Amino acid sequence: MELKQETQTYEMPHLLTYYECDETGHPSMSMLLSMISMASDEHSMALGMGIEKVQATGGTWVVSGYEGQLAEQQPVFGETIILGTRAVAYNRFFAVREFWITDKEHNIEYARIKAIFVFMNLKTRRMESIPAALIEPFRSPIVKRIPRLKRPQKLNENAPIVEKDYRVRYFDLDANHHVNNARYFDWLLDPLGRNFLKTHRLKKFNLQYLQEVRDGEKIDSKVNKLIENQKITCHQISSDNQIDAIAEIEWY
Amino acid sequence: MELKQETQTYEMPHLLTYYECDETGHPSMSMLLSMISMASDEHSMALGMGIEKVQATGGTWVVSGYEGQLAEQQPVFGETIILGTRAVAYNRFFAVREFWITDKEHNIEYARIKAIFVFMNLKTRRMESIPAALIEPFRSPIVKRIPRLKRPQKLNENAPIVEKDYRVRYFDLDANHHVNNARYFDWLLDPLGRNFLKTHRLKKFNLQYLQEVRDGEKIDSKVNKLIENQKITCHQISSDNQIDAIAEIEWY
Repeated sequence: MELKQETQTYEMPHLLTYYECDETGHPSMSMLLSMISMASDEHSMALGMGIEKVQATGGTWVVSGYEGQLAEQQPVFGETIILGTRAVAYNRFFAVREFWITDKEHNIEYARIKAIFVFMNLKTRRMESIPAALIEPFRSPIVKRIPRLKRPQKLNENAPIVEKDYRVRYFDLDANHHVNNARYFDWLLDPLGRNFLKTHRLKKFNLQYLQEVRDGEKIDSKVNKLIENQKITCHQISSDNQIDAIAEIEWY
Repeated sequence: MELKQETQTYEMPHLLTYYECDETGHPSMSMLLSMISMASDEHSMALGMGIEKVQATGGTWVVSGYEGQLAEQQPVFGETIILGTRAVAYNRFFAVREFWITDKEHNIEYARIKAIFVFMNLKTRRMESIPAALIEPFRSPIVKRIPRLKRPQKLNENAPIVEKDYRVRYFDLDANHHVNNARYFDWLLDPLGRNFLKTHRLKKFNLQYLQEVRDGEKIDSKVNKLIENQKITCHQISSDNQIDAIAEIEWY
């Protein structure tokens, strides 16, 4: 684990396990997001801001969206990879964080991902301004405007749709007592089916979180029916007729 | 990673991640089984028997059952734990392996688990005799009789039952192209519900695998309705009216 104060970067090695990988032998997207989320937690802890300290403010960090690209070559289980992150910039309500995943020698960049974080009041479940004590230690610049992530292209409701539903399970909850947002990717991608998923590799993705999924809810996951040689898929998950998240994915 | 040839033991450190833990902050059972399964894979690899070499025989190792006990004190995410394993004994069809999970200093034993492995032909999906070249390097004794694991107590079909169904998802498959058998625990336990699971800690378990779950199948998970202060629960999962696995669990 390496913390470089002057550039606000943090890196940690990670042994990629068998159970973090899917049938292709490469990490699944939900595990990939879980791993980078662990890296940002470790970064915070290295700067003295563990979960207790964050939650003592009455709030918690929440990701509002991800935007990322993956190399065609991906790591395989048993490989030690590097998880890296840095705080890029912030303003009163938004903080931008960048992540990268490389091989052990930093020769191959497997993934580069940008995330927008907001700060949510634990009681009201509403966004509030970021407490200075929780952002200043990262030494990232305060800026006027945070560049927004590219908004995912919407599902075409008029074109044929493939739809599957899922029930949130107890083990989708994490120690934060909420559904781990990395899991959303399992629901988003599963309707594409095995034939597509085992033969396609993800190139770019934009994911926007709109509403929190809760324990026990039924999730509807929709994607437009695939046409031959399709390179982009548009996804939507919803519960109780409210949209929880939308995503646009480009495939190799 | 430490391989002690004379005692056939293998140990590896593991940083327990946030996403390997459930709401209680302790590892979920499916993650715990995934972790020890990784330890036995690493043990095999350290002895020159990687997946390729095993599958070149036309077969693969399959767990037929687990029996284990967990301490009341369990590790928390962020903690480095030790995953240990040794080959205990084998005969023509069965191999016994023992696992332990301790804290970094080997002071606290968090779990001790016994597993019975059989060897399955990849084409016929039937059990076959264990190839000598795949078992001898573990230097465990060959024995006449392998003591069976205690058979889990059966679900009482005449008592009230809680039942939930689950669909196998693409991301339940692993690089072996089959449903990862550690996942069975998520289906087995989920019907107990959040109130029970967040307030109870597992003490002992017996799990017997009877039939392979396949991609896309619908799983019915049953457990007898809980009565107050109940210390033992009996579980069953089935698909297409065939029983896939049964388990008996004792709780603290």
